[in-house]
Amino acid sequence: MRAVDIIRKKRDGLSLTREEIEAFVQGVTQRSWPEYQAASLLMAIYLRGMSAEETGHLTGAMVRSGATLDLGDLPGPKVDKHSTGGVGDKTSLILAPLAAACGVIVPMMSGRGLGHTGGTLDKLEAIPGFRVNLSVDEFRQALRCCGCAMIGQTAQVAPADKILYALRDVTGTVESIPLITASIMSKKIAEGIGGLVLDVKCGHGAFMKSRADARALAQALVATGQNNGVKSSALLTAMDAPLGRTVGNALEVQECLDTLRGRGPKDLESLSLTLAAWMLVLGGVAESLDAADEKVQAALASGRGLEKLREIIAEQGGDPHVADDPGKLPASPHQTFVRAKRSGYVTAVQAESVGRACILLGAGRNRVEDAVDHAVGVVIHTGLGEAAREGGILAEVHYRDQATLGPVLELLTSAWTIGDAPPEKSSLILETYRGAPA
Amino acid sequence: MRAVDIIRKKRDGLSLTREEIEAFVQGVTQRSWPEYQAASLLMAIYLRGMSAEETGHLTGAMVRSGATLDLGDLPGPKVDKHSTGGVGDKTSLILAPLAAACGVIVPMMSGRGLGHTGGTLDKLEAIPGFRVNLSVDEFRQALRCCGCAMIGQTAQVAPADKILYALRDVTGTVESIPLITASIMSKKIAEGIGGLVLDVKCGHGAFMKSRADARALAQALVATGQNNGVKSSALLTAMDAPLGRTVGNALEVQECLDTLRGRGPKDLESLSLTLAAWMLVLGGVAESLDAADEKVQAALASGRGLEKLREIIAEQGGDPHVADDPGKLPASPHQTFVRAKRSGYVTAVQAESVGRACILLGAGRNRVEDAVDHAVGVVIHTGLGEAAREGGILAEVHYRDQATLGPVLELLTSAWTIGDAPPEKSSLILETYRGAPA
Repeated sequence: MRAVDIIRKKRDGLSLTREEIEAFVQGVTQRSWPEYQAASLLMAIYLRGMSAEETGHLTGAMVRSGATLDLGDLPGPKVDKHSTGGVGDKTSLILAPLAAACGVIVPMMSGRGLGHTGGTLDKLEAIPGFRVNLSVDEFRQALRCCGCAMIGQTAQVAPADKILYALRDVTGTVESIPLITASIMSKKIAEGIGGLVLDVKCGHGAFMKSRADARALAQALVATGQNNGVKSSALLTAMDAPLGRTVGNALEVQECLDTLRGRGPKDLESLSLTLAAWMLVLGGVAESLDAADEKVQAALASGRGLEKLREIIAEQGGDPHVADDPGKLPASPHQTFVRAKRSGYVTAVQAESVGRACILLGAGRNRVEDAVDHAVGVVIHTGLGEAAREGGILAEVHYRDQATLGPVLELLTSAWTIGDAPPEKSSLILETYRGAPA
Repeated sequence: MRAVDIIRKKRDGLSLTREEIEAFVQGVTQRSWPEYQAASLLMAIYLRGMSAEETGHLTGAMVRSGATLDLGDLPGPKVDKHSTGGVGDKTSLILAPLAAACGVIVPMMSGRGLGHTGGTLDKLEAIPGFRVNLSVDEFRQALRCCGCAMIGQTAQVAPADKILYALRDVTGTVESIPLITASIMSKKIAEGIGGLVLDVKCGHGAFMKSRADARALAQALVATGQNNGVKSSALLTAMDAPLGRTVGNALEVQECLDTLRGRGPKDLESLSLTLAAWMLVLGGVAESLDAADEKVQAALASGRGLEKLREIIAEQGGDPHVADDPGKLPASPHQTFVRAKRSGYVTAVQAESVGRACILLGAGRNRVEDAVDHAVGVVIHTGLGEAAREGGILAEVHYRDQATLGPVLELLTSAWTIGDAPPEKSSLILETYRGAPA
């Protein structure tokens, strides 16, 4: 099976067989396919697309390129959640302990933030002492003891994805639904889960700007999960404004703790609880979404979610006192405010601008190798739909370096739009895709 | 200007600017663009296409990637011919001396055969002593003295094409009209010519199988020539059966000599003379195609064409006696025949099968690095439209190695189709494209 024949076939719009896709992924992993042939095939896939069947084969081949966890010895359903990335998107730290408190095992492997969207690992590392690089044995031990562990992807998981992602980044082949799907799903399937809830972000602040693209991705993700034996559902959720009221690692951890105390912002609480409820449904812990909702609500109200997060933090080497003492989290040396230029109603808070401001502050990174400052970030005082008063505070900026402040304030000021009337109320959850029963 | 941005632009179907195309070609030539980025852009060009303007810029950038000849010091029009490649296509050795005998300067740089189609350099090297690797000074000297020289492309000419062609070959991006056009035209424009006749082959034995593809290529070649200051015309010619009666290097040289004596097969003579006449028209040596035809006919009838070929052979180190003594050309040790299985009329001689048989004999090559055997080949006794008699000779096989003979005879037998009635007469020249007056 020659590489050039596989390339020509996809170039001509034909479907590749399981064997051809396997040859490609193995060739990439073992470096027997030169990068120029992989790049040429990636562009052909980008422009010609892949069927659901091909995407499933690609995902399976990428799973088989590395190690997979077998969690069969842990009793209970294993369910995870994945988000395609947003600004202020911190639901993992809320839903994972809630789902675990309700009897779901959550073996969560996450990524770091890149570009204007944040990453779970960066948020977790804002907690003093928290280790995201557990060994596989430590990961199993944490799952056994807490029912939940949150770590980074190990190098053994889907190595083909790391190689292909790096190549896609420099060859203009990132924004391809089959390639995105295989990248996301291969890493999740390798976790050894039986269920997966997907939070597909859609809007100005998301990777998928249009509803049509987000919908296509959601459908591809769910189909690929189902085809690989993972019960999957996807929510399409709006990502035009930041989620919740904080953006920046330590600030977001504090907001998650507040939410687990029942004092979080409504949008964040509501989405986190819905995603957690879906995890219960897919794990078979609740028979209906309503029943699951009740269980999750109860775990929140009783404080069992917060208690579970304390356990997880302690198990992974972090300081569990952060859960009760905000002073234990890193704090920025300086604060300043963004103020409204006019009175009216906030009709938009551009998530991408807030995300970009946070990169400038040091909370996020432009390149994989950049370090992040866990203390800095933005707290939203006057959010979407709220009344603003001329000179009133829109946001509070937590910063370290005076030099970055000019462009940060400029970006933030431009992020808010204030109009005469409040915007129409719109739902955060736009659509739901439920995998067919396996 | 980042490579990835240029790739993304073409991927999205937009036109690239002159500067972007220049950056790509320079990046490839100077090896500052990694091969995976070049491969990705080549696939995007393959699938998205290029406008006539972009193709012109690509061609110009490839010309500028290397040295160009300035033949301004030689008085007279400089005109060349290029064929897209066929089986038994040997017109260069006939038309170049004829055009030179009529006052056109022919600075011909050719390639070697690859796959089932032959190459001018291999045929010339069948002539004992003939040197195709003249230095630039020797090339100029030969042009000054004979008005014609026939050599291989020097490494200095369009180095970007060599790199890109090698990459296209392994990335499934060969059959792209803008890429083919730029590859052909960059090397021809670098010759310093003012006119170019293109013989675009079309049919089963050609690179372009369909009339529509051949037409699109002809139009792109002519437009690109005109846009780069080279008066260009293209003939679309049939390549279903081999051209003339011989395939194989020394056999084809002999057939050219016969043709220059007025004793060649009609199809070969007619096409060679028409192409030569077009060279006279583009060079301004004749005012009309009819007037040019007359001049070329006269050069043939008077023996001045043959005399010119003798001169060229002598100037380039070859033995001019081959022109008069067939025994001076290499000959194969063995001959055998392909015989008709039934009586009737030959309705098809599959050029590609004959070409593939000649590769097996050793006359052609599958890979660039293969050597060729100049002596071996096939002589057609009963050609297209002619009457065959059961057991009569269809072709004569000149071979060296008994071991190859089985598959060779099988291929050749399958190449001939014999029917009850003669096929309809069809014209070798299918269409003509004349560049707009500059």
